[in-house]
Amino acid sequence: MARVLTGIQSTGRPHMGNILGAILPAIEMANKSENESFLFIADLHSLTQIKNPAELKENTFQVAATWLAFGLDPNKTTFYRQSDVPECVELSWYLNCFFPYQRLKLAHSFKDKANRLEDINSGLFMYPMLMAADILLYDADEIPVGRDQLQHLEMSRDVASRMNHKLGDIFVLPSPIIQPETQLIPGTDGEKMSKSRNNTIDVFANEKEIKKHINKNIVTDNTPLESPKDPNSSTIFNLYRLIASEIESNKMAEQLRAGGYGWGHAKNDLINCICEKFAEPREKFNHFINNRNEVEDILNHGAKKAKKVAEATLIRVKKSLGYNT
Amino acid sequence: MARVLTGIQSTGRPHMGNILGAILPAIEMANKSENESFLFIADLHSLTQIKNPAELKENTFQVAATWLAFGLDPNKTTFYRQSDVPECVELSWYLNCFFPYQRLKLAHSFKDKANRLEDINSGLFMYPMLMAADILLYDADEIPVGRDQLQHLEMSRDVASRMNHKLGDIFVLPSPIIQPETQLIPGTDGEKMSKSRNNTIDVFANEKEIKKHINKNIVTDNTPLESPKDPNSSTIFNLYRLIASEIESNKMAEQLRAGGYGWGHAKNDLINCICEKFAEPREKFNHFINNRNEVEDILNHGAKKAKKVAEATLIRVKKSLGYNT
Repeated sequence: MARVLTGIQSTGRPHMGNILGAILPAIEMANKSENESFLFIADLHSLTQIKNPAELKENTFQVAATWLAFGLDPNKTTFYRQSDVPECVELSWYLNCFFPYQRLKLAHSFKDKANRLEDINSGLFMYPMLMAADILLYDADEIPVGRDQLQHLEMSRDVASRMNHKLGDIFVLPSPIIQPETQLIPGTDGEKMSKSRNNTIDVFANEKEIKKHINKNIVTDNTPLESPKDPNSSTIFNLYRLIASEIESNKMAEQLRAGGYGWGHAKNDLINCICEKFAEPREKFNHFINNRNEVEDILNHGAKKAKKVAEATLIRVKKSLGYNT
Repeated sequence: MARVLTGIQSTGRPHMGNILGAILPAIEMANKSENESFLFIADLHSLTQIKNPAELKENTFQVAATWLAFGLDPNKTTFYRQSDVPECVELSWYLNCFFPYQRLKLAHSFKDKANRLEDINSGLFMYPMLMAADILLYDADEIPVGRDQLQHLEMSRDVASRMNHKLGDIFVLPSPIIQPETQLIPGTDGEKMSKSRNNTIDVFANEKEIKKHINKNIVTDNTPLESPKDPNSSTIFNLYRLIASEIESNKMAEQLRAGGYGWGHAKNDLINCICEKFAEPREKFNHFINNRNEVEDILNHGAKKAKKVAEATLIRVKKSLGYNT
């Protein structure tokens, strides 16, 4: 049985693109997996960019509530906040002392961020060693990563090998499990759905808001009601087929091609489908909004489980370095 | 009442130069001070250079035993190992996220070390933020520093100000107390006593070893016994006057100037004086060598006291950042 570890960025309430493209597949994998899985909200990483305490806290809550609302099973997965197990930061110091400064300078993601962001702090620069600590602390065997994270994982393996070489086998070498590109989910403008493009759909909004949002933001051409329409070039259809059943999708495609079915009809069908498909998670999510302590309890419970593993690793590492344990 | 905090480098058994130049004055200050003082052995910092666990452990023990043998009062001073309070590493992550990478790159000491050392690891680069955390964690008001550490202290103040500005007054701004240059203690070759020059005197060696070491390593010229000699150009005299009383020093100077008193006599007087002056600390030190647990207990007790302060600060900081506490 492998131990699989995944970090989730905590950037606020996930939108439909995040949910369909990443969260649902990940939850499905975690719940059905025979592996032991660790899943954490990377709220220490968030601090490299978010300096507003209320925003930081709320982002973490929204992310946790979303994963739980969509059915992540916290009894099967050790689900915790990174900041609740600060042992990872302690470990990162030890790793830092074994990792060449010049190699850390070669991190693509830092260079990229240094070009893009205004706040280029030392945390951003150090991040690869915190990520390595997050992984090595839990003796994780497999790390699902996108191609953009592959270099960070290489650094984790590198520093673990250096220390194993010097101190004996204290770390499990983690293997990357390269994830397929997440499915492209179109936003209301037909481009990839993303916060920065301002084209997202909030599935946790109420039905009235969803209706208003979609009617206003998905722009359609003025093909008359009676005329045949091409489903594949329609954002409405491209969103619909991602959430509707195959039968329903085929039906909408036929109706569009046949004519006599207008964009307004299609929008209504899309809206109804979204409202229906996300009704249960929305209800759960709203329940958590009103019962924040439940999410808190689940995360605290996860942190306790994670901490046990973390403490054991840390004792092993400190002993091998010559520290008091 | 100010809180004064000092970190001690843990580089192995201190020699007579360290003891006379730095340790004795610091202990005298700590014991008589009306301030509250925190003194820690910087064994996390040591890891930037020492990768041998036995050496790391032994260095820490030797340093602790020396300070205690020379009379540091662990009831008056909170005396602890840095690694026993890893809260400082956790805090350093938060500081890193508020400190510009470009400023960290300007640290003189890193540039200097990067030019001198073979192992230029990321820990060396990050060290100023760990040092800042060591200080800020304890709400220290005053930090005795040499001029070479002044820039690090400026960085500590800088990052504390940045966070106070953004999050409210969470940190005490520490003030540097610039220390006078430590007194130059000559080694057996007359140059500054230092490990790297291989000219040190180990005051914890037994009398026979000390005698042999001094007779062999302090080279004298062949001025005949009867001839007058210049005390001030003699390493023997220059060491003697640092540990003998004024009366004794004057006596040796007169004898040398008068003639009929040879280098051998002077060496004997120096050896006797060293053996006598350090008899009590040597005995205590040897006691600790045979009762290592006593040192361990003292350090553990210090760590407990330090941890209480550290935890309170960390809760304050985490709360202000939006983390669970």
